[in-house]
Amino acid sequence: MRTEANKAGIGNLLNVERARPTRSLILLGASGSVGSSCLRFIENQSDIRPVAVSVHRNVECVRAILNRHRTRRVCISCEQTYRESAGDLRSRYPDTLFYGGPEGMLDMIAAAHADGADTVLTAVVGAAGIRATILALNLGLKIALANKETMVTAGPAIANLIRSKLSDSADPTGAPVILPVDSEHNAVFQLLAGLRDDHIRRVILTASGGPFRDRPVEELPFVTREEVLNHPTWSMGAKITVDSAGMINKGLEIIEAHYLFSLPYDQLDVLIHRHSLIHAMIETRDGAYLMSGSRPHMVFPIAHALMYPEPVTNAHSFAGPPQQWPSIEFDAVASDKYPGYRLCVAAGRRGGTAPAILNAANEVAVELFLNGELRFVDIPVLIESVLEQSTIVDEQDLEVFLAADQEARERAAVGLAAARGAG
Amino acid sequence: MRTEANKAGIGNLLNVERARPTRSLILLGASGSVGSSCLRFIENQSDIRPVAVSVHRNVECVRAILNRHRTRRVCISCEQTYRESAGDLRSRYPDTLFYGGPEGMLDMIAAAHADGADTVLTAVVGAAGIRATILALNLGLKIALANKETMVTAGPAIANLIRSKLSDSADPTGAPVILPVDSEHNAVFQLLAGLRDDHIRRVILTASGGPFRDRPVEELPFVTREEVLNHPTWSMGAKITVDSAGMINKGLEIIEAHYLFSLPYDQLDVLIHRHSLIHAMIETRDGAYLMSGSRPHMVFPIAHALMYPEPVTNAHSFAGPPQQWPSIEFDAVASDKYPGYRLCVAAGRRGGTAPAILNAANEVAVELFLNGELRFVDIPVLIESVLEQSTIVDEQDLEVFLAADQEARERAAVGLAAARGAG
Repeated sequence: MRTEANKAGIGNLLNVERARPTRSLILLGASGSVGSSCLRFIENQSDIRPVAVSVHRNVECVRAILNRHRTRRVCISCEQTYRESAGDLRSRYPDTLFYGGPEGMLDMIAAAHADGADTVLTAVVGAAGIRATILALNLGLKIALANKETMVTAGPAIANLIRSKLSDSADPTGAPVILPVDSEHNAVFQLLAGLRDDHIRRVILTASGGPFRDRPVEELPFVTREEVLNHPTWSMGAKITVDSAGMINKGLEIIEAHYLFSLPYDQLDVLIHRHSLIHAMIETRDGAYLMSGSRPHMVFPIAHALMYPEPVTNAHSFAGPPQQWPSIEFDAVASDKYPGYRLCVAAGRRGGTAPAILNAANEVAVELFLNGELRFVDIPVLIESVLEQSTIVDEQDLEVFLAADQEARERAAVGLAAARGAG
Repeated sequence: MRTEANKAGIGNLLNVERARPTRSLILLGASGSVGSSCLRFIENQSDIRPVAVSVHRNVECVRAILNRHRTRRVCISCEQTYRESAGDLRSRYPDTLFYGGPEGMLDMIAAAHADGADTVLTAVVGAAGIRATILALNLGLKIALANKETMVTAGPAIANLIRSKLSDSADPTGAPVILPVDSEHNAVFQLLAGLRDDHIRRVILTASGGPFRDRPVEELPFVTREEVLNHPTWSMGAKITVDSAGMINKGLEIIEAHYLFSLPYDQLDVLIHRHSLIHAMIETRDGAYLMSGSRPHMVFPIAHALMYPEPVTNAHSFAGPPQQWPSIEFDAVASDKYPGYRLCVAAGRRGGTAPAILNAANEVAVELFLNGELRFVDIPVLIESVLEQSTIVDEQDLEVFLAADQEARERAAVGLAAARGAG
């Protein structure tokens, strides 16, 4: 980082050749969208070695990794898939240790850390991702966080853990390092690096507005699964693409940003930006803006988080100079079109277990939608009914949040059945 | 500034009420465009006191300041105006000390510093600005630098001075702090704050392209003085407006950035951006971009530089949210339209006294143009001929650069006369 002195100037006094450290990476969720992008990135990156990986069920992905890398540890987090495949895998890859189930994933992380792993990319969804993140925090691993449910579900518990680690100077693992892998949060992270807290007026995340930004509200009850899954700018997994179509994804990101950057909701905002070139902006108190952008591709935040604080050494093939970008425009959010977004912000402001309940209900609702059992416009309706039935509590104990998550999932399933019975 | 730890998160641990220090400001060039904007800004800013000001000839401006502020010291740098007005001023403002001429300006700076002044805004042009900046560096004043000729004319000498101050840990004035007041450089300064040198691929300054960006090259010989002075986005003084029309201003800014940020010319670039909302960008090595922008108004960099490292506490009235901005687009520079820009970059790359010669020849050429004695398209022709006649030397002694400046001014005047004689 530049000091005032050498910024002001002159003479590259810090022109020191830095030794690039090698990264020993634990990749959790290797077969998902973020996991695959990570694997493609490290393909040509000899200084990042995937020493431990997990998949949920995708055994083909495991074989592909082991045929390419000398990965010491592999976890298959679906118990049944693990039981069915572990025998074959062990005989085919005798140098690799295999772990099964969510507990196996935690054992693998601890063992890889004991072997010298320094970085974990958590791209697994749900409770397994939360426990993995907390273990990684306790071990002092650098965390590339691609699992926004961690912060949304268990924000106060993780905040509490980080606070205790920050105040405990005797802790040998040092201050926690969480690098966000959402492109918006990664952009915010980079922009905040040079700013003092009291310079910040607002942090703005951009949203493409999804495939229905130009669709009249009256037509939304009739949109098809294919239309919902046809995102205009980002290529992502199905769950997050559905979330994006209703801007629930952006609402979850606001909650994630609240916990990740310790910013009150009054300082967090969203603008529609249809080409997804600018990912985030910071409005400083004088009314000026700092922005961070790139062509929309997940490799940017993934690579940044893995390499940090070292630079990514080469431009990604998806990069393109600003003179090739389409025009950049920003619009306010038409919130009548995005009731799910409004629910997220309200749950975030309520705090406690409200975001955990909202997130769990949304996961159930999206799965029902993808299975053809719920209309797109009924996703926020189901979420709201689960929130209304739930008691929101303010705690810092992880188990309280995991219980709220579990209970909300059950309520959402029952709620749909009840609605069906009534219908 | 946020640390990794509190960025990663959680809990506003640094939520400390800061005492805002009062600024004692020396304002050099109070009657110019930057000086007037500065005076308007501090009008409602009780924590910035203008303890010393200079004007060149504008005695009315002095009266206006003294009727409003308790300014202890005033310099009128034009000797003749000083002689004509000092008597009246002394009797009307008995509590104020008056100084005359360029030497008087230096005496005033030293006396104000001895009284406790901490900040100087150098918005005077020419050699007086250079000597004032060097004195301010030696005194350890914080410098808000609005005089780009300082860096263009005497870059190597100032670089040498700063280098020696940085390496001399016994120097009681500490590391130099230069805050750029050009909006582009101020934007770069803010963006660099969070970046390590090895993350930077390119620093890009934006240019509006001036009033002739859409004019065919063949029509440029016939443009009028009024057309040249009709800048599409920025309201500035006449000299800089002419410089902007031919993008010589942007070329000078590239040279200034080279010295201010110790960046090689290969890492400095310009893009056309017609609405002047984004002032600068940094391309990081992964191919992503950090940008800084605001509505185009000089109050942003002036206020930032004066308050730094404290925040400007309120949004300027010229600020406007991104959803009110016009579309943002970037284009490559059509360099056949801007021969003056090409000359600047070539002089910068040559180094030594070449930028000093170019800048001096340009000042003469612009004055001749403003007086109707030179066509707009002949400004770069005159500059190039002066450069061709001059011997460029590589030194670090200030006097060498001031001599090169003086000699180039004489050559430019002679060159025009010679061209006239031949014509």
